[in-house]
Amino acid sequence: MSGRALLHLLLAGLLALVAGHGDRQPKPLPLPASLFTGRNGIQQTSCSGGFSARKAVDFDGQAPYILRFQEVLTNLGGWSATESDFQAPCTGAYFFTFHAVSTDGGDFTVALMKEGKYQVTAYGSVADYQHGSNSALLFLNAGEKVNLEVQQGILYEHPYDEAYTTFSGFLVEQF
Amino acid sequence: MSGRALLHLLLAGLLALVAGHGDRQPKPLPLPASLFTGRNGIQQTSCSGGFSARKAVDFDGQAPYILRFQEVLTNLGGWSATESDFQAPCTGAYFFTFHAVSTDGGDFTVALMKEGKYQVTAYGSVADYQHGSNSALLFLNAGEKVNLEVQQGILYEHPYDEAYTTFSGFLVEQF
Amino acid sequence: MSGRALLHLLLAGLLALVAGHGDRQPKPLPLPASLFTGRNGIQQTSCSGGFSARKAVDFDGQAPYILRFQEVLTNLGGWSATESDFQAPCTGAYFFTFHAVSTDGGDFTVALMKEGKYQVTAYGSVADYQHGSNSALLFLNAGEKVNLEVQQGILYEHPYDEAYTTFSGFLVEQF
Repeated sequence: MSGRALLHLLLAGLLALVAGHGDRQPKPLPLPASLFTGRNGIQQTSCSGGFSARKAVDFDGQAPYILRFQEVLTNLGGWSATESDFQAPCTGAYFFTFHAVSTDGGDFTVALMKEGKYQVTAYGSVADYQHGSNSALLFLNAGEKVNLEVQQGILYEHPYDEAYTTFSGFLVEQF
Repeated sequence: MSGRALLHLLLAGLLALVAGHGDRQPKPLPLPASLFTGRNGIQQTSCSGGFSARKAVDFDGQAPYILRFQEVLTNLGGWSATESDFQAPCTGAYFFTFHAVSTDGGDFTVALMKEGKYQVTAYGSVADYQHGSNSALLFLNAGEKVNLEVQQGILYEHPYDEAYTTFSGFLVEQF
Repeated sequence: MSGRALLHLLLAGLLALVAGHGDRQPKPLPLPASLFTGRNGIQQTSCSGGFSARKAVDFDGQAPYILRFQEVLTNLGGWSATESDFQAPCTGAYFFTFHAVSTDGGDFTVALMKEGKYQVTAYGSVADYQHGSNSALLFLNAGEKVNLEVQQGILYEHPYDEAYTTFSGFLVEQF
């Protein structure tokens, strides 16, 4: 086996170790990885990572708590429905955006967290059903996790078919 | 003609059939498609899809109705100004985000629809000129359409030069 | 030297001229550029561009003024912390999104500007601490600049650790 082929196998194995456990695999389209020439000039295993989750799980306990979602709209890989967090399947820059609505009369702050470290806040005001959202482009090493944390207040989610709370992210550039 | 070359021709022809009608072609930079090695390991015709539309068309009729836009800010391919919808030029994952503002005293719900099927809602509250927005990463087959639907209430759009309502989307990963 | 190699050198030099001055270089991962086959069928120098800035600098002067940020969360290349603007490192389509919160009792309009030309507005209402945001996909020639302008009112930014105001952008497709 050539050195390059061995490298490919090792990279693929590493990726499988990082992304291949739990419920993080891309459900709708489990495609085999291919090779591409990365920005560093050597061939790499290409990577797919991204998700959209919708509808906040009702939780009227004491903040701070992890914001959990009822439904997975899309999973290209990395999102865990049971953990309600995203684990980077490969090292790169990822874009995240999230939206929520406050209850009638209460406000909220929801924070984007990377490996437990604060990034940005969405604030929804105390008037009735106020929208709050925020976004960030983050550098993640393979295996690092991102989630949302309700740091204060509670959220309003539609009791039936509509989805007001969402959390989406995807790989922008692989390193 | 080799089998691979024939496949390329077929793929290019299929793409032209799907994306090449109406006003959906990318206006500013009509570049020829090139070939790339897709995640499935075979060469594919590369794909460009994305748009930004701005300024809601005033409409005080009965909801639900399609949210239409006055201006196209950017069209990489797939957006129809006349239909006010986006048609996926190729199969893949696409990111969409949309923003709107309520009127003075009225609220609204605007839904992101994929092939007529509900995805997520932006809610703008009843206080004066409240912002509402939402986002989603969606898997689309080539030819599938996405649009916005005002499901309740009406929107405020600036009467002159400013743009409050927007709808943007772009291809994140081609399959 | 072959014609193709000369072209690569020229492209790399041009890119360095455009992106390599001031504080716009990507700080965390200064990777060497590689070559890829662009949509026009010829090899190009690959390009990295994107950023997230957070926490608005307090400014209670007369609008309009440039919205400046206290911190750089991520810089893949193109963002200048001193200028608080993004300069496209290569020609392509870029996605931008921005979020802000109004003060208690005041409203604001923040505009996304491309080369001094208006694109879209985020409006935050006069009720207390109202969120406003907007997004756009823009075509930029290499070297063109994008920034935010507070066109009316002032913003609320958290006095301590939280970040309410953000501005993010990244390359979607290189031409």
